[in-house]
Parts: sequence; structure tokens; C-alpha cells
Amino acid sequence: MSDAFRSRHIGTAGDSARLAQALGYADADAVVRAAVPVAILTPRETLAALPSAATEQETLAELRGLAARNRVLRPMIGLGYYDTNTPSVIARNVFENPSWYTAYTPYQPEISQGRLEALINFQTMVADLTGLDTANASMLDESTAVVEGMLLARRASKSRSTVFLVDADALPQTKSLLAHRAAAVGIDLHETSFDQSPPPADIDVFGAFIQYPGASGRVWDPTEAIAAVQAAGGKVVVAADLLALTLLRSPGSLGADVAVGTTQRFGVPLGFGGPHAGYMAVRAGLERQLPGRLVGVSQDAAGHPAYRLSLQTREQHIRREKATSNICTAQVLLAVMASMYAVYHGPDGLREIARAVAARASSLADALTSTGAELVHDAFFDTVRVRVPGRAAAIVADAHGRGIQLLLVDDDTVGVSVDETTTAADLDAVVQAFGGAAGAARAGALGVSAHLPASLSRIDEFLTHEVFHAHRSETQMMRYLKSLADRDYALDRGMIPLGSCTMKLNAATEMAAVSWPEFAKIHPFAPAEDVEGYLELVTQLEGWLAELTGYDAVSLQPNAGSQGELAGLLAIRGYHLSRGDLSRTVCLIPSSAHGTNAASAVLAGMSVVVVACDDAGNVDLDDLRAKIALHADALSALMITYPSTHGVYEHDVLAITQAVHDAGGQVYIDGANLNALLGFARFGDLGGDVSHLNLHKTFAIPHGGGGPGVGPVAAKAHLAPFLPSHDQAQRHEHAGGFTFDGGAISAAPYGSASILPISWAYVRMLGPEGLRDATSHAVLAANYVAQRLRAHYPVLYTGANGLVAHECILDLRPLRDETGVTVDDVAKRLIDYGFHAPTMSFPVAGTLMVEPTESEDVAELDRFIEAMISIKAEAIAVGAGEWPADDNPLVNAPHTAQAVIAGEWEHPYSRELAVYPVASLVRGKYWPPVRRIDNAFGDRNLVCACPPVEAFA
Amino acid sequence: MSDAFRSRHIGTAGDSARLAQALGYADADAVVRAAVPVAILTPRETLAALPSAATEQETLAELRGLAARNRVLRPMIGLGYYDTNTPSVIARNVFENPSWYTAYTPYQPEISQGRLEALINFQTMVADLTGLDTANASMLDESTAVVEGMLLARRASKSRSTVFLVDADALPQTKSLLAHRAAAVGIDLHETSFDQSPPPADIDVFGAFIQYPGASGRVWDPTEAIAAVQAAGGKVVVAADLLALTLLRSPGSLGADVAVGTTQRFGVPLGFGGPHAGYMAVRAGLERQLPGRLVGVSQDAAGHPAYRLSLQTREQHIRREKATSNICTAQVLLAVMASMYAVYHGPDGLREIARAVAARASSLADALTSTGAELVHDAFFDTVRVRVPGRAAAIVADAHGRGIQLLLVDDDTVGVSVDETTTAADLDAVVQAFGGAAGAARAGALGVSAHLPASLSRIDEFLTHEVFHAHRSETQMMRYLKSLADRDYALDRGMIPLGSCTMKLNAATEMAAVSWPEFAKIHPFAPAEDVEGYLELVTQLEGWLAELTGYDAVSLQPNAGSQGELAGLLAIRGYHLSRGDLSRTVCLIPSSAHGTNAASAVLAGMSVVVVACDDAGNVDLDDLRAKIALHADALSALMITYPSTHGVYEHDVLAITQAVHDAGGQVYIDGANLNALLGFARFGDLGGDVSHLNLHKTFAIPHGGGGPGVGPVAAKAHLAPFLPSHDQAQRHEHAGGFTFDGGAISAAPYGSASILPISWAYVRMLGPEGLRDATSHAVLAANYVAQRLRAHYPVLYTGANGLVAHECILDLRPLRDETGVTVDDVAKRLIDYGFHAPTMSFPVAGTLMVEPTESEDVAELDRFIEAMISIKAEAIAVGAGEWPADDNPLVNAPHTAQAVIAGEWEHPYSRELAVYPVASLVRGKYWPPVRRIDNAFGDRNLVCACPPVEAFA
Repeated sequence: MSDAFRSRHIGTAGDSARLAQALGYADADAVVRAAVPVAILTPRETLAALPSAATEQETLAELRGLAARNRVLRPMIGLGYYDTNTPSVIARNVFENPSWYTAYTPYQPEISQGRLEALINFQTMVADLTGLDTANASMLDESTAVVEGMLLARRASKSRSTVFLVDADALPQTKSLLAHRAAAVGIDLHETSFDQSPPPADIDVFGAFIQYPGASGRVWDPTEAIAAVQAAGGKVVVAADLLALTLLRSPGSLGADVAVGTTQRFGVPLGFGGPHAGYMAVRAGLERQLPGRLVGVSQDAAGHPAYRLSLQTREQHIRREKATSNICTAQVLLAVMASMYAVYHGPDGLREIARAVAARASSLADALTSTGAELVHDAFFDTVRVRVPGRAAAIVADAHGRGIQLLLVDDDTVGVSVDETTTAADLDAVVQAFGGAAGAARAGALGVSAHLPASLSRIDEFLTHEVFHAHRSETQMMRYLKSLADRDYALDRGMIPLGSCTMKLNAATEMAAVSWPEFAKIHPFAPAEDVEGYLELVTQLEGWLAELTGYDAVSLQPNAGSQGELAGLLAIRGYHLSRGDLSRTVCLIPSSAHGTNAASAVLAGMSVVVVACDDAGNVDLDDLRAKIALHADALSALMITYPSTHGVYEHDVLAITQAVHDAGGQVYIDGANLNALLGFARFGDLGGDVSHLNLHKTFAIPHGGGGPGVGPVAAKAHLAPFLPSHDQAQRHEHAGGFTFDGGAISAAPYGSASILPISWAYVRMLGPEGLRDATSHAVLAANYVAQRLRAHYPVLYTGANGLVAHECILDLRPLRDETGVTVDDVAKRLIDYGFHAPTMSFPVAGTLMVEPTESEDVAELDRFIEAMISIKAEAIAVGAGEWPADDNPLVNAPHTAQAVIAGEWEHPYSRELAVYPVASLVRGKYWPPVRRIDNAFGDRNLVCACPPVEAFA
Repeated sequence: MSDAFRSRHIGTAGDSARLAQALGYADADAVVRAAVPVAILTPRETLAALPSAATEQETLAELRGLAARNRVLRPMIGLGYYDTNTPSVIARNVFENPSWYTAYTPYQPEISQGRLEALINFQTMVADLTGLDTANASMLDESTAVVEGMLLARRASKSRSTVFLVDADALPQTKSLLAHRAAAVGIDLHETSFDQSPPPADIDVFGAFIQYPGASGRVWDPTEAIAAVQAAGGKVVVAADLLALTLLRSPGSLGADVAVGTTQRFGVPLGFGGPHAGYMAVRAGLERQLPGRLVGVSQDAAGHPAYRLSLQTREQHIRREKATSNICTAQVLLAVMASMYAVYHGPDGLREIARAVAARASSLADALTSTGAELVHDAFFDTVRVRVPGRAAAIVADAHGRGIQLLLVDDDTVGVSVDETTTAADLDAVVQAFGGAAGAARAGALGVSAHLPASLSRIDEFLTHEVFHAHRSETQMMRYLKSLADRDYALDRGMIPLGSCTMKLNAATEMAAVSWPEFAKIHPFAPAEDVEGYLELVTQLEGWLAELTGYDAVSLQPNAGSQGELAGLLAIRGYHLSRGDLSRTVCLIPSSAHGTNAASAVLAGMSVVVVACDDAGNVDLDDLRAKIALHADALSALMITYPSTHGVYEHDVLAITQAVHDAGGQVYIDGANLNALLGFARFGDLGGDVSHLNLHKTFAIPHGGGGPGVGPVAAKAHLAPFLPSHDQAQRHEHAGGFTFDGGAISAAPYGSASILPISWAYVRMLGPEGLRDATSHAVLAANYVAQRLRAHYPVLYTGANGLVAHECILDLRPLRDETGVTVDDVAKRLIDYGFHAPTMSFPVAGTLMVEPTESEDVAELDRFIEAMISIKAEAIAVGAGEWPADDNPLVNAPHTAQAVIAGEWEHPYSRELAVYPVASLVRGKYWPPVRRIDNAFGDRNLVCACPPVEAFA
């Protein structure tokens, strides 16, 4: 059928022969075969285990079948995950709107003002509720945020101790993650029952972690404990529940240095564990220690306030082995949703929700007490922990029969968590499961909680900014969301040819299932019998990914590429340790590598040794061999990216991996560029021992404006035992029959499980042949762009037959030298032409790396090529003195509508040239909302919360 | 809870006391009580039968419960309804995108270019496929389109005969509708088996109707029959299946004058019968006879091509009793979807789908023959009719057990229809139900049909325009849809204060269920046992609407307000006839009435007598009494609108209705303005005997850019027997225990059933108190606008205490007299200020009628008020000679970005004033894509298909 998904996904499907012939090849397949070293080409039969392509309708039907095997019950398990009401207006206009979910990370702030505003709302919300000064633009999840908090405490503490205290009443998944991560970097964890015994005065620690309220639900006053740790020179990290903080004193007011947590219950579906936005906020003075992204206010060329990412020079990918965190993404789409939940409800609405939750928990506790059960603690917000000696399992089973999922703490103890969706009928069912009578819990259900300690009552205001008071009706909210989306450039406007980022189509059919309740409303610790559909989907996807990459085992747990990378390196570490190779800690990394590689290596306890690249951008084999020899028995691993970060298929790859193996090292292949290889070659066959993949690149999960990502880790059998495990996983066996035991890397057993149906559908609809075609058309498109632009901009690296892989690096340095026009000027000028700029100055300063992907059609490729040619001509005119160096269409780019309309026009080029440099823009013009943004000004004057409305006057 | 839907729906919920106090009242409720005549106020208890408000989540849960009672089986019933694959990219980006569904009818073409382009694609698609010259922008459904075709034939025919031939093989629902409608206007229908006996040469008819392929699926050559009717001076209407037309000769090529049909199977969900877009196309020379809307190409002030509605002066609402049709809406949202299905598949894709359908039907037929069944006819496209003497019911039952719905034609005959979703497994199940073996139908399933007559093979090309060839990838399609949406102004940008049109919030929760398969994928003639959820929802909504309006019975069948109106008048006609009152045919209509009233009366076989209005815009009681006396025994009905079309609560309404009743007449109350009354007074209590409601106004169904509408008819018990019935209805009993017997008014038993969950959810979430509040806040907002603008523009009509109802008429005639600035100039200038203009020149020429609705917040009301005040000042400046009459910001409005940027600026006002007349526009500016459009030029040069791409160069 012509409506096979392949022809919908691949933009050049109908034109590929023509394009290939222009390059001198018969078809797209021939282009790839000429570019990829013959030695690594995989026979087609290799992928025979994958199912052949299904239509979009068949795929939806299969997904509905899997969905039907998940049971949507009432999750009252708690442990950091709560059911929530996603406001329909947010679900429809953010979660299901490509203008939001197909956007890229806001590295080009001029065309990202909408989501940057949403993120600064998020930061303001977190800072306000936690009572701290500066919050970042989200973390991957609560447990990884705690780990990052621990690492921050170590950096910021004056103490040289290696000891970090951990709250005994912390979430179990957080404890696991802390243990796994601390071991790798030499931190000693001491578990402490802070509420029972505050730290002694002479304690020697660099910090402490406190869960507030506790995992058990207990609410207590940690002021003393915090003060004791700080007196010892330590920093205190508090994980706090944001909804509870609307009623309870904030971590900041209690003295905490750092607050972390999740924003899931602010309208983000449970989704079997993710994706959700974690958060981190810090006290003044620590803001430059924050990991991840930080949105700040600066000003544009006209002096108007404008948002952008602050302190980018501090960002992890620049710091390499000096990095303090390997996190380089966020959970933007989910952070936007959570922030909009707060915008929509406002402080009064949030308090009202919290009061209702607390009141219901309170009346439930009283009703349970009346059945003879005993409360483990009397002070709580939403979670009741109940002692029922010997009866716990029976009660949990009884409740399950009534459609309620409770937490089995131990043989004698049950946990019950209330959330905003809990109904009177739910309370009834719980009470009945405990042997009580229906109706017992209802009396006080709408009153107030008798179990919230008055001494901890919150008295200070929060969310006082107007944005949290101005969108109370759905009409207002819908228009606010639309107005923000209108300010941004996403894939629904045009191509985003970002090298290394693979901004391909995120098909609507792929996205559909994510919204279904059977995938959305599932608790990550639900019993296995309730999540059979999910488990089946996970197993299938693990198997397909293993097949596609030539590995034996796959873990889907890492919820970002950086985490997959870390998990892979920790697996290597575990492998060496298991063999008694205690000294293998050197990680070789080519100079061309992405900064995250080095950062992850450091966090895996390795030391980084850089390997040189030759002039062609390939790993210098001689230097590699020299470095291997130099480090000999200390060699742990080599990390390489294939095809290289230069966008070239290195021909020596087999020699490289062989050299490492010969020296007893392991080979880590970074999957960032898998889009250039899938179906043609497999990392496992290249000598890779382990890789991470980016489902948000190659496998069509949308970038969401800067997250979520999914970064599965795939490995050969000998590393499988060291892949991520999870104590609370419903099933410990994985595809291929492997059992992992590497420790947790994410808070949830299957990471960002709810978006796995996207990649599942992508593979299902393309099938093995379609996946190959996607690769060949991606390579074809990149070579078409390279060929047509070569005469105007040198293409920096090419491989066999002068071909690039799936991206090409355009060298703008000669142009700069000739004309003074910088890569930044060209990138900003592209905005005037209606484009998102390619990747700037990575991996080589002064260049643009273009990755068109297979989803763009010829007309769009041509539009881009012509824009680049036109911009070149403009630059030449500047160089020739036609326009002054400080006043020309490039240096003044991007031009807003207001800039070309208001007031006198005093530039040496016309208004029309400024904004309509090519005629096609008249029909459809994207108007950037601000002019070029001054990054240095913003970093000097760091403002990371909503500016007052007057600032925009 | 603060998140109760009431505060989300009502924009001024938090500010109403302040606004009311500014008007001198305590609260919104008091404003309404001061405006509405005390005598008609309804006690609150009246609405006690309605359920109290549910939260959004509770409502979704209830809807999921209803959905679960519908069974999604495989509908192979045919009869004009086929399952179809809605491309996900269209579902997500059109059907579920407020930028499309919250738009209004494109009466302001400058801000509607996106949907106008989609509609001209629709017209081109229909004209191409039918082989005729001009198609309109959609009809309500196929059967009403046939009725309109019959009426067109009568107008266009030279014959004075009253006879119209009807194909014996027409769809049963079309036959019913024709019978009901023909009787009212004196047309005699003669059923004819055209395929067996062509009309004789001496026949005296004004036209004929042919179904092609027949309802039975039969494909035959109607050339001879068509020629025979035309030889007699008649016009021939052919209902044709668009998918079949990709393979079969077009109606145009066969000689037809008019082609009609449905576009449902082009990607529009079955939805239990609707809404879907019907179509009509005509041969050259008949285009000015087309009912409904016609999109054409004209040019804007800069000479660029621009779309707008053609021949608007011909539109029905202008023609009143001279109107030839009462249709004044279309099915825009569905027409957009169907057109995009064609854009996405292109001619090759459509042909491929059609070939697969035909091949599957063919192989099914052969397999059934091999079971011993006999084909009723050997030539067919997708529908196989099978003779199985005595076994039909058993076979249909057996198939149902296998999940397949077949058509039981009679005891001996079964119908099976294949569509694009039919799978091999479906064919197996059908064959097995007939007693055959699985696999029998598969052999030829992917081949070609042996049952399509070669002599009727289509040879001419269709869909040759580039738009049908340029969007083959999902990325292209997504961007095309976005680029069109970006050109339009909808409720997601700002208010649309259209008097009489009630552009209120269409909440995302209300819209959610429409997308669910349990509501979307249901055939209108599915067995009752499969649609229990729908039937329950219908019964509940009928009951609620009866309660809210003070009537006894409600029919939801009319799929537009105009059809509800007609159904109500036909009920009055039926009532009089049933009592032997054969001469009661006069319908009194006030001069202020909407033109559709008169048009509907004519189509109900009545003659219209106009009643004068007094200076205050109220019905002139003296004239009414005089007209009643004059027509005495001929009096059939009075039609009034309440509150009046002038936006005022007439105080004499009880006297008016009494006078009509005293004379033996019936009172029809037009529900157009129900939004000003709901919860405070009821039509039934005012003396109304029958009314239609507009669910797309008062009950939150979105306008969809110009449809769908839903126009239920509600009546007192004595009229209930004459309300719309439907032979194929699953249940003939309605809420309140009534059985209707009035004949069909729509093709489907429950009209546009799939969007009824929207209104159901609206009532369910607001509850009786919330509905009252919605009314009072709508009235409050209108009075706030009236009060603040009164000093600048006279408010034309007011009622008690100087108050208006839910809308106010601003008189712009004094301004025009003083300054020369017209109402058109003001309306277009409002676009520059970021607004959709209010209703222009209705009900009074030279005025703007403003209806803000309850959903707008104070900030938006103020923004509008300030724009109007600012525009007044601009007009005064023109009047004062500051700017020339032919060159000022008003007469040149709207200003495009290009107009203020490109080239020299030669106007006496600044570029900035042109497009940023107020500062708030800098942050969020809607840019109209074209300048003011020349309507006269377009009507003189009628072009109603896609213009060549070069036209835009």
C-alpha cells in the first residue's frame, strides 16, 4: 500500500533515485554502501528476527492489544509516585501538540522564548515552594537528583570527609541509586535515622540527605539535624514533596542547602515511572554549582528582556573530564506540564488540592485506627503507614481485589498513599480491605487533617508572581499555551538540521499510545500481574534493539543518553572488578568526543586519557596504540562514537577495537550517531562491548524541547550481569534470558517507560527494510547537502569516496577570515530565513554541523541550501565593504517584526532584505519574538526566576 | 474544589462581583434578574432533575463508562457509511487542534485564509472526482444533499412538472428524507428502477435522482437514463461514491447535471452517523444555483490572490422568503479532514485504496459464490449483495458473533460492504458466517476486481493540482496543516465576539471522548445491542435539554440549526394536518428575524408574512394582532427569537405567544439566543410550542471553522408525534417515553451523534447552577461592554433598566455619517488590533453586534473595549481631515506584515501605527496573511477550484 509508513516517514522516499543519481549512485542504498567500510557491512539476514513492517492501523491495533494487558487500577502505593489529574487543556495543547513536543533544546534562545518562559515559570515554582533562591530547569528524576545533590554537597562542602549521611526513611529507589553511584566515586554512605537520633556535634561528614516527608509518610522537623550537619561543615540535601510544601514549612526555611524532588504529581501522568521532571533548588551562593540547565533572563539587542540558558559555558559538555555532572539534558516537556499545572491552579488551587489530600489521608488513618490497626507514625501529609501484625499481605491482596494497589512494607506493615484523584469510594475500599466498614473514612474527608503538625505549618507565601494568577480559566490557559508555542520554532515549522541530534519525524501514530490511560495511569511499582502489557512491550523492544545493534542484552532503564553512557561504563567497571582487575580505571577518549563521554567516565570512577585525532578527524591509530601501551594494565575502556562525531565512517574501526581488546580493555561505542548505521552495520559486530542508544534520536522519541530522552544501554553477554538492575522491578529477567545485577541507574525500573511505545511503534511500522531505508535516506540527504554546499562552504571531513555519513560539517572559518562574519552571525541569520541553525561549533569551533535526517523532503533541503548560499553572498558583501561590519543583515540578525517596522530605519540595507531575503518567506514567515540575546549580560546579572511584568513594559 | 469546571469555563468567574457592581448590581445573578421580565423567570427548582456538577475527571470517567457500552466491531453494513483510516497526522493536527476546531465560519476572509484554502482543496477534489465544474464547500450529509439537489433541479429545470424520479436502488435513508421533504413543497416522487427500465421519451418530470453505485452495490451505466430525463427538460442528480469514482467514470462524464454524496470515507470517522461532510457539484451554468457555501478566489488590495466565500449576496440569510434553501452552515471541519485525506494520499494513493477495496470485494464475492450463495448483481465496486434464501438472518447473526456487522436486506438477502480497513481475517469471518472455509476469499485479495465493468473504467485524470502531489510525507503534511492554521484566527488566539454566534470555550475535556474509538468507529445502523452507550447518552441528553427548555420531548437528529428549525416547522405542519387544519400555512415572522427563519418556513410549505418591529426592536404587538386577524384561519405559526435578534428580552413575550395561541397558531421560538436564558427562563414556559437549539452555540460544540452544527428540536407533547423519526433508528422511544413519527430530517438516526458527548459533558460538568452562572456571566459581560462603549458608540437597543441580554448592538451609522468610516472599515481595522470582528450589519445594517460570551475574562473584554475606543479616535481623525478618506489606517485595514515592510511607505500614518496601534500587540501579534479582499472582483470572476501555483508568484 502506498500508505505504508515508510513513505510517510522518509521525506525523500519518492525522489531518492534522482538525488542518488546526482551524486553518481544508483540509489540511496548504493550511497551508503560506498560510504561504509565493506568490512563492517552487515548482511540483510541479520535483521530477520525483526517483524516485518506493519501499517499504522495495524500498529495501533497491536498497541491497543498490549494496552489491554495493563490494568488501570487505583495506585495508592506512594513512594514518590502519585496519580494526578492532568488538566485536559494541558494534555491537549502541550503533551499532544507537536509545537511543544517536536522542539529542540533551547540552545538558540531567540527562537525558544516560549518554552524558556515556561521553564522560568518552572524554576520560579520550584524556588518558591522549596523556599530556596535558585532552581534549575529540571532533573531526570528524583533519585538521580538526590545523587546530583550528593555530588554538589561534596563539591561545595568545606569538609574533606568522604562520608555522606543518608536518611533511613528515604525512598528505597533513592537509596539503591545512591549506593550504586557513591561506590563508583569513593563516597561512603552512612544510613541514619535522623528523626530518632540527630547527628552528634563532632560528626565528620561532607553532607547529608533527608527525605521530607519521609518515605514512610512521616512528617517531622529536621531543623536540628540540618543544623548539626552544617555545623560540621556539611551541606544538607532535602528531598521534598512539592504538594506537601504548599502546607508545610519549606526546606529553605528549615535550613536546607539543596532541595530536590519530583514534579510528577503536578499533572504529569504516572506512566509506569516516567518520564517526569525532577527538580533541584539551591541556596544563594550555590547556583553556579547547579547541574543541568538553568534558564535566566538577559536582554536582546534592543534592550528588551529575553530568556536564555544561563551559564552555558559551565555546561557539562564543555567541561569534559572537569565536569561535575554528566547530565546534559532535562525533562523539558514534563517540566512545562508541571509548571503549567501550577500556573493553572495557582497557589490557592494547589493549597486546596493539598488540603483535600491531607484531609482524606487523615480521615483514612482515623478509620483504619478504628479497625484496630495501629499507625506507625501520627504525623503525616498524604501517606499512612499502618501496623497490622501478620496481616499485611492479606490486606494488600484484599485491596487489590477491590481495585486498589497498596504498598506491602513488610509482613506486618502496609502503606497507603492518598492523592488528588482519590475518591470516597477508594477510601471505602481501603477501609474494607482492613476489615472496616464502608463510610468510616468519609466523615472528615472534606475537613482538615488532624495529622499535620501545626509547628510545621507553612506561613510564607509562594507563587506570588502574576503568571500564577492570570490563567485561571481554560480560555486563558489555552491562549497562554498558544501564545508561547507561537514564539517557538519546532519541527512543525521547518527543518532543524542539528548535527548529532537527529531531529527526525515524530509521527502522530507513534505518539498516540502515550496518551492512553492504560499506559499513562500505571504506577512504576504496580504488581507484575497488572502490567503485563508493559512488560511484554519492554521485552519486545529489548529484543529488537539487541538485534539491531548486534548486542546480546539491553536495558531500557537509563532515562537519558548520559545515563545510558554512565550505566555502560559502570558495567565495564563492574566487569573488571568482578575479574579482580582492580586497577583498570583508565578510559581512553578521542579528542573529538562529546564532552559527556568524559564526564560519564569520571562519574564511573575512571580517569580520562585523551587520544588524538588525525587531520581527517579520525582516531589517530598510532596515538591510540601509544596510549594503550602507556597505560597497559590500567586500561579500562575506550569510548568512541561511530560514525565519528565528525560525521564520517572511520575505516579503521575494526583495528581500533581490536587494539583495545588485545590490551584487555573494553570498547564503549557511543550510539549518538546510530542513525547513520542502523540496518547496515551493528556496534556489536564492530567490536563494541557496550553502547548506549538514544531513542530520542534514532528511534523517533521527540526531543520535547529539551527532554525527555531515553538512553538504553546494550551490551555483549559478558557485560550483561552488570547492566542496570532495580530492586522494585516487576521482572528481573530480560530479553534473551539475561538477569542484570548492576545496580539502579534511574528511579524507576524501566526508566521513562511511558514513551517506549513511541520507539516500539517506530520499529514496528518501519520493519527491518524500512529501518535500513531510513538510514540510507539520512545518509543520502546529508551527502546531497554536502555536495550542493561544498562550493560555498568547505565540507570539513569526508570518508570513502568523498562521502559523509548522516551529517556534514561546513567550515565557516575561511568565511570568517575573509569577511569577519562569524558562525554565530550565520546561525542567527538563518532564523531570518526561517530555519533553526545546525549544530554550532561542535565538534569543531567555527563550523556548522548539518544533519538533515531522512524525514526532510527535497524541497526543504533545497530551501536550506539556497538560504545558506544566499547568506554566503551576504557575507561576501560585508567582506567587500558593501555593508559595514557592525551594521549588516548578518550581525543584526535575527530581525524581529518590530525591529523592521517601528521607528526610523537607519540601516544600510532594506527592511525587506532584513526579513524577506527570499520570496518564499512572504507566504509563511516565522517571526522571532526577540532580537539577538546578550549572553554575557545575562551571566553577569543572573536572574533565574520570573521577572516582574514591568520588565517587559 | 477550585478546579470545578465552572471556574474554568467562565472567564469572569473571579471578577463578576466587581463587574456587576460597576453596573450597579450586587452580582451577575442580579443583573440578569433586572434584565429578564419577572413574569418569565423560572424557579431554580425547575432544574432539579439535572444532575449536579461533576468534575472534569468524573465526567471523563462517566464517559468512559458509556463508551464501554458501545462495541467496536467491524462494520460491513455499507449504505453510505464505511469505516476508514483517519491518518493520525490529520486526527492530531486538525480534529484535535483548537486552531482548527474553534475557528468561526470564514465570513472574515482575511483572517480565514487557512481554512479557505483547505475548502478550495475540498471543492477541487469534489469537482475533479465527480467530473463536474463547480463544487461547493460541503453539505450537511448525503441525503440532505440529495434533497437540495432535487430542489436545485426544480429551480433549474425548464419543465413545470411537479414530478421527480427517484432511483429504486437509492439509499433507504435518502428515500425517506426525499419523501418527507418533497411532501412539504408539493413535489411528487416516482420511484423508478432505472437500470431495468430507462425513462420513456415522453416522460414529464423536472428531474431525476440516481444512486451510483446503487445502494445494493450494483454498478451500471446510467448514461441512457440521464439523457432521457434531460431530453424531457429535467435535470439529473447523481449521488456518487467518491472512492468508487477513482476507478469508475465520473457523473459528469456520464452526463449528470448535479453530483452529490458524502466524503465520510475519506478519513472521517463513522461516529454513529456524523458529522461528515456531504458534497454537491454542478455542471457549468448551475453554479449560481448551488446551496450552501462556495469558496472562490479573488484578490486583495495588493492584487494578490486571496480566498473568500463567493456570491455571498446570494446566501440564504439574505434572501429570506425568496431563499431556495435554508442551509446556512456547512461541515467545514469534516470537509477539511476529507480534503486533507485526498491531499495526503493523492490520486495514486486513492486509486490504490480503491483498487484494494474492489479486489477484496471481488474475491469475497467469488468465495461466497463458492459456498452456494448467489450474487444479486455481478457488477459492483465494494458492496456484495448475496441471495441466501431463508438464511439471511442466521448468517447475519453468525457474522455478528464473529465481530462482523452485516446488512440484513430481507429474509433472503445479505449485504456485505468492504472498505479500506477490511482485513483478510474479516473476509474469512464473513465467508465462514456464510458456511464457507477460512482462506477462501484471500487468494485474489491483493489482485484486481473481476466485478468492475470495463466499460465504466475511469480514464480521465483527477487531482492534478500540485497540492495533491506535494504532501506525501507526514512531515510535509504536518507543516502544511500548521502553515494553514497559522494563517487563521480562532478562539485560541483571542475573543470572537460574534453576536448571535456564541463563540464560547470548547473545553478540551468536552472534546476528549469524540476521539475515542468507542464513539468514533460506530456505524449508524449498527444493531442496538452494540450501541447501548450511545443510546443511553442520547436519552440522557434529550432529557436534560427538555428539562432546560421547558419542553416535553427532544430530537437530536437535526444536524444543523437550520434543520432543527425546519423539523420544528414540519412538526407544526404535521400537527395542523393531523387535526384537519389543511389551510393553516401562514407563518408570521418579525422583520428582525434571521433570514433562515423565512427560508425554513418556505421549505416547510408555508407562506411568510412579516410582522413589524417597533423602534425598540421589539415585535410590534399591534401589527402582530393585525396580521393575526388578517390571516385568521390560515395562521400556522409565529416564529420569534428570544431574547430577540436585537439582543433584548422583550417584555411582551407572553402577550405575543398568547395572541398566537388564541388564534389557533403555534409558537416557534428560535433557540439562537438561548445562551442568554438558560437556567433563568424556559421557552416552554414562555408559550413556545417548539424550538430548535444550537448545541454549537449554547452547548459548547465548537464551530469547527463553519460546521459541524447540531440543532436539536424540542417540543411540547402535542407536537412530539411529529418530531423527526428515522426508519433505521435503533430505538424509536425517546426520553419521556415519546415516540416520534415526523419523518427523517437527517441521513442518520441521531444526526451528528459523535459530537453529542461534547454537549453532554458541558451540561454534566456545569450542572444546573453552573449553567445558570454561565448565562448570568454572559449577560454580565455583554452589559459591561455595552456600558463601557456606550459613550463611544450608541447601543442600539436595550430593555428593562437599560440592560441588554447577552449581546449588544453598537450603532456605527452616526460615525459613518460623521467621518465616512464604514462598519466594514472598523471590522477590518479590528484585525490589526488582533480581534475577530463582531457580527456585521445583522440584524441592522451599519452596526456591529457584540457577544462576548461568559468565557472571556475581564482583561480580554478590556482589550476589546480599548481597541474599539482607539478605532473611534482614528475614525474621528479621518473625519477631521487628519488623514485622507481614501488613505488612512481604517480604509487600508487590515495591514499585512509585508505591506508595512516591503518597499517605500507612502501613507500619511506610520508603519507602526498601522500594525501596532496599541503596545500590547508587540508581544503577541496576529498577522493577517492578505490585505482587504475584493469581493466584487471575485464574484465577477468566479474561480472555485485551486488556482495554479503561479497565481501566487
